[in-house]
Amino acid sequence: MTRYVRFSLDRTSPPATREALFGILDGDVVYETPSLGSEQRGAARPLSGVRLLPPSMPSKIVCVGRNYREHAKELGNPVPAEPIIFLKPPSSLIATGDAIVFPSISEHLSYEGELALVIGKRARNVKASDAEQHIIGYTCINDVTARDLQKKDGQWTRGKGFDTFCPAGPWIVPRDEVAFDQLRVRTYVDGALKQDGSVRDMIFPVPFIIEYVTRFLTLEPGDLVATGTPPGVGSLQAGSIVRVEIEGVGAIENPVVTE
Amino acid sequence: MTRYVRFSLDRTSPPATREALFGILDGDVVYETPSLGSEQRGAARPLSGVRLLPPSMPSKIVCVGRNYREHAKELGNPVPAEPIIFLKPPSSLIATGDAIVFPSISEHLSYEGELALVIGKRARNVKASDAEQHIIGYTCINDVTARDLQKKDGQWTRGKGFDTFCPAGPWIVPRDEVAFDQLRVRTYVDGALKQDGSVRDMIFPVPFIIEYVTRFLTLEPGDLVATGTPPGVGSLQAGSIVRVEIEGVGAIENPVVTE
Repeated sequence: MTRYVRFSLDRTSPPATREALFGILDGDVVYETPSLGSEQRGAARPLSGVRLLPPSMPSKIVCVGRNYREHAKELGNPVPAEPIIFLKPPSSLIATGDAIVFPSISEHLSYEGELALVIGKRARNVKASDAEQHIIGYTCINDVTARDLQKKDGQWTRGKGFDTFCPAGPWIVPRDEVAFDQLRVRTYVDGALKQDGSVRDMIFPVPFIIEYVTRFLTLEPGDLVATGTPPGVGSLQAGSIVRVEIEGVGAIENPVVTE
Repeated sequence: MTRYVRFSLDRTSPPATREALFGILDGDVVYETPSLGSEQRGAARPLSGVRLLPPSMPSKIVCVGRNYREHAKELGNPVPAEPIIFLKPPSSLIATGDAIVFPSISEHLSYEGELALVIGKRARNVKASDAEQHIIGYTCINDVTARDLQKKDGQWTRGKGFDTFCPAGPWIVPRDEVAFDQLRVRTYVDGALKQDGSVRDMIFPVPFIIEYVTRFLTLEPGDLVATGTPPGVGSLQAGSIVRVEIEGVGAIENPVVTE
């Protein structure tokens, strides 16, 4: 069982300033590797002695909005005829365990648990039938959203782009170790199940998304593609703990704190 | 007179695969430097022997929409009460001289000449009065837009995010070498003047933009902040040459080609 990780030996500095290393997690041991997805194992350290970071350092985070029929409906939106694509800035990334900061200029913070694809090989104008070979594996994402600012602004960049609004991880599970059709995205707030959707219910399936996105831009190794959230979105409060879990992939858990 | 440049010694490989170096341009000589904005001069080469690249490698390109009253009006849009923020992906960057590719899935390609700020120092929760010290200098940007896709999608990510849709450069002019209030953004298509606006006509001035943006995200050194386009936008055709010129900053010129 292989999990690609990104980690730091520095457990105390602020996330953005920690030196990052790539590695492979095998059981409870992290082996340093020279780059994302490399199988060349270097120094070994116990998992308990490192700090997991977001599992890649993407040049961009591409997201698909309203990709589950029942989620589009629950927010009163039409089911889209084409994928709605937006970007979250890399500055919004945090790791499992890091705090989501509830901005004081928002009154409605929401979770959106999602499966994310991690790109392993540069992709541009890729046909759906060839999409898989550009995906190195899967990880969990929480597309945290200030719902009031998202609605007010029209463009979603600010409402979805605050620092700490993209918990991701805890690691990348290689594509061929995942039984994709069996994946379910579950989100828990303070232990209560809020979202529970099968990836088979995506309106636009993964190969279609890769074809659609790479029709206009180049995906680079390490880039994340978030595939949309199933129904059940709701609000977060300061003091909440939100957990996004995809059985067979992993789980990320983040406390919500006031600004 | 100092101009910060990013360049490659490789004049033939595709832009994304060229090895990039930072430097200072002094007259016709490029001095290699260890990083963006460094004054430590290394190897000297004639400007004619290098290929200029986009002047920084931003972790994000933050843009302000409709920041000139007359431009908002010409597209039939209301003048915004708050800045409209969106992101262009780093994959859209090209240098002066590189070709803008007119996507076959669009029928309406438009130029938008803009002044861009280049961040020199990490910025988060910066007050307008302190904004200047986070800006290392200025450069030119063309916020190329597939106008039909921008309107159709609602979210602007695809319409403004195609590869080659962000010509930037040719270099960065340090902030203290620019008489800011005298800057005019001019865009020419095949030699004909199309846009000619003073930066004093921005609805939201630069310090306000920095405060607004860093209220929600962290700007990193090298990040670009495009400040909006003056009135006069119009269409581009394959075969056109589009030039964005800001006197005292520089000019970028890009041919438009079919896909």
